[in-house]
Amino acid sequence: MAGKPTPLSGYPELLPAQRFAETEIIAILSRIFELHGFANIETRAVEPLDQLLSKGETSKEVYVLRRLQEDEGGKDAGLGLHFDLTVPFARYVLENSGKLDFPFRRYQIQKVWRGERPQQGRYREFTQADIDVVGAGELPFHHDIEVARVMAEALAALPIPRATLQINNRKVLEGFYLGLGLSDTEAVMRVVDKLDKVPADKLSDLLVSEGGTTAEQARAVLALAGVRSTDSSFVSQVEGLGVSHPVLAEGLDELAQVIEGCQGIDGVDVVADLRIARGLDYYTGTVFETRLAGYDQLGSICSGGRYDRLASDGTTTYPGVGISFGLSRVVVSLVAGGLTADRSVPSAVLVAVSDEESRPASDALATQLRASGVPCEVAAGAQKFGKQIRYAERRGIPYVLFSTADGPQMKDIRSGDQVPVDPATWTPPAEDLRPSIATTQEKNP
Amino acid sequence: MAGKPTPLSGYPELLPAQRFAETEIIAILSRIFELHGFANIETRAVEPLDQLLSKGETSKEVYVLRRLQEDEGGKDAGLGLHFDLTVPFARYVLENSGKLDFPFRRYQIQKVWRGERPQQGRYREFTQADIDVVGAGELPFHHDIEVARVMAEALAALPIPRATLQINNRKVLEGFYLGLGLSDTEAVMRVVDKLDKVPADKLSDLLVSEGGTTAEQARAVLALAGVRSTDSSFVSQVEGLGVSHPVLAEGLDELAQVIEGCQGIDGVDVVADLRIARGLDYYTGTVFETRLAGYDQLGSICSGGRYDRLASDGTTTYPGVGISFGLSRVVVSLVAGGLTADRSVPSAVLVAVSDEESRPASDALATQLRASGVPCEVAAGAQKFGKQIRYAERRGIPYVLFSTADGPQMKDIRSGDQVPVDPATWTPPAEDLRPSIATTQEKNP
Repeated sequence: MAGKPTPLSGYPELLPAQRFAETEIIAILSRIFELHGFANIETRAVEPLDQLLSKGETSKEVYVLRRLQEDEGGKDAGLGLHFDLTVPFARYVLENSGKLDFPFRRYQIQKVWRGERPQQGRYREFTQADIDVVGAGELPFHHDIEVARVMAEALAALPIPRATLQINNRKVLEGFYLGLGLSDTEAVMRVVDKLDKVPADKLSDLLVSEGGTTAEQARAVLALAGVRSTDSSFVSQVEGLGVSHPVLAEGLDELAQVIEGCQGIDGVDVVADLRIARGLDYYTGTVFETRLAGYDQLGSICSGGRYDRLASDGTTTYPGVGISFGLSRVVVSLVAGGLTADRSVPSAVLVAVSDEESRPASDALATQLRASGVPCEVAAGAQKFGKQIRYAERRGIPYVLFSTADGPQMKDIRSGDQVPVDPATWTPPAEDLRPSIATTQEKNP
Repeated sequence: MAGKPTPLSGYPELLPAQRFAETEIIAILSRIFELHGFANIETRAVEPLDQLLSKGETSKEVYVLRRLQEDEGGKDAGLGLHFDLTVPFARYVLENSGKLDFPFRRYQIQKVWRGERPQQGRYREFTQADIDVVGAGELPFHHDIEVARVMAEALAALPIPRATLQINNRKVLEGFYLGLGLSDTEAVMRVVDKLDKVPADKLSDLLVSEGGTTAEQARAVLALAGVRSTDSSFVSQVEGLGVSHPVLAEGLDELAQVIEGCQGIDGVDVVADLRIARGLDYYTGTVFETRLAGYDQLGSICSGGRYDRLASDGTTTYPGVGISFGLSRVVVSLVAGGLTADRSVPSAVLVAVSDEESRPASDALATQLRASGVPCEVAAGAQKFGKQIRYAERRGIPYVLFSTADGPQMKDIRSGDQVPVDPATWTPPAEDLRPSIATTQEKNP
């Protein structure tokens, strides 16, 4: 390879200290998902093209695979890279249905690929973190509450700006529209879904022209979309709009249960937000979107909902409820804003080397430190000690261990303090053991 | 999706309990790599085709990408999936050379893709775990010892059969061949590389016909390939063959240092094995291969070596030394032999539900357990307690928490013991907190 390669647009990569921040976020997500009994799985990166193409609008963005030495019609000609983790999960559930226990809770943190035009927060290769609960035949409603709560706890625990988990229920929208006397509720929902992109007066016109409403019905539809509360008071707000329908009542009850179930989690806002429609997806009840404070331009960073039919093999239907966190979308944006770790290496200690002859002695000191779980590295060369300290400084390593005539001494290069230590028992303060994430992001503004 | 999908040959996937065994192995590898100061990075899955194709024999197995809606000559037409982690790492080093500190230690655990014909231990999609140390301009020899030791410690710590790390040095082979009066040392090495596939008498003929040796030189070449020792006694064995050359002496000295540096690690065999040639790779000194006891058919599960020229941008050359562990190759084989976890879920406790009205109370008990770090799940339905216990049994969950008139009681469903507990303070014995790997593999036979 000659010359300096240039980055590929749409394929973000991180420097080591930035990657540490990402792996910390993955570790926090995994820990919380596992505390709630979600098992990790990984699916292959490829799916048959016909399966990928049957899933609607994303189909045009699929990357197709071809073996370099193979004819167009070869065995691999029908494979493409997955563009989300839901299609492969549905296939995995069907393929392994006899070996899985239902309800099946899984989390999956993997890369996906889309041939989109790269723009802020949109990449061609990116990582998503999905949780889903899937049932065989049926899936009780309480799993909607569960999934909302798990992701709310995760959003609260992550070192990211404060998130707002916005929850709605398709039955509220559908029931309300039916109660208004509208029959093509999907057409109305598709227009409501544009609420963030189109001014309110324009939207009113669109509801009439595309949604098939009267001007008065359009006003009611927009009034519903304006309802929002952090507790179940949204129910009386909706009732105040004077529309009633059994489907609406069912949706309000479900949504109230989800909102109540997410109370008492510090560090995140959970709101019933009746403008959330997710008009283009196949959700049948609860729907989720998430906004990150100060990052409006990212859109929803965490979305999902209830599917009555995640998958079906003709005999059994598998309903599911899930939510997908846009890991790369969030991490790459936060990294651009300064999210990083305070070290570029895991090492807490640099073991100095006096001269190359004594390198085995330095190696032995390092082995002692590692036996107590202290990450460390031995200096690459026997340079002057000032140079070895600067070597540690550049990498953010807080301690340097020197061999002196009086035995090993540990220098905290931030304070300059140097004390005799026994490398077999010394450990740093807990906060120095691993790199920590340095960010100016305020969780609770 | 209608009907049951069938697995794709060459794309192995794991069930949740099997995947847990894999994630444990990844966690052990990561911990040991980080204890030695190796930083994790992740590179994109794609590289420009011209870069992939310039790397020799693997080129014919590359998967090429095409956007479904794009013409053949489109912007993405020149991209392929990486077939190893070395090509992307070399590119990453060049691209970020100004932002990295050298020597740069990194580990990378990612999927790679090869369009090979699937067979045992060979997949089209598989995960590798690589460590490398790379220098700018120069890289001291002691990093060869370091990389060998790190991987030997990892192999010893993994829940896999006993591994034998076989180490050689290209300079030993090259110097010996030069000392024999042979000039086309590469041709000889390519023949020696077939030692595992071709019978010894046939190999002797091949050395004459393809390697350009005399029959006597062929005997000497094969005698060298037979040298093997777990300490530095191989040096005198080689000296006993009566060949001398300065390059041979240098190689023997380096190899002895690597072998000495790997002494004292329990649970792994480290041997100087002079038949290891890795004839088709671009190594210039130390070379590594690894065999797994009882899994000869897998071939080498962990290979690598020293490159004097990992990458170059025309101004600076970046030498490196590294080793790559074939994670999928090992895990998928061991899973076929029974490697799995004793649970299909992370949950240590199933919180029983008496009736749907009391589900919030069960949820509250679960929240208390989770606050102490105990993974748990709440029963999906308010079935009879016997059914809820069987629900736990099927998943391998060891404890069920019941609400009784006398307060919460924890049942160990293996022993049947049931005792009153305070869910705010109860934690299981450490060995029950997480799933554990159940395997019949003996580390030390």
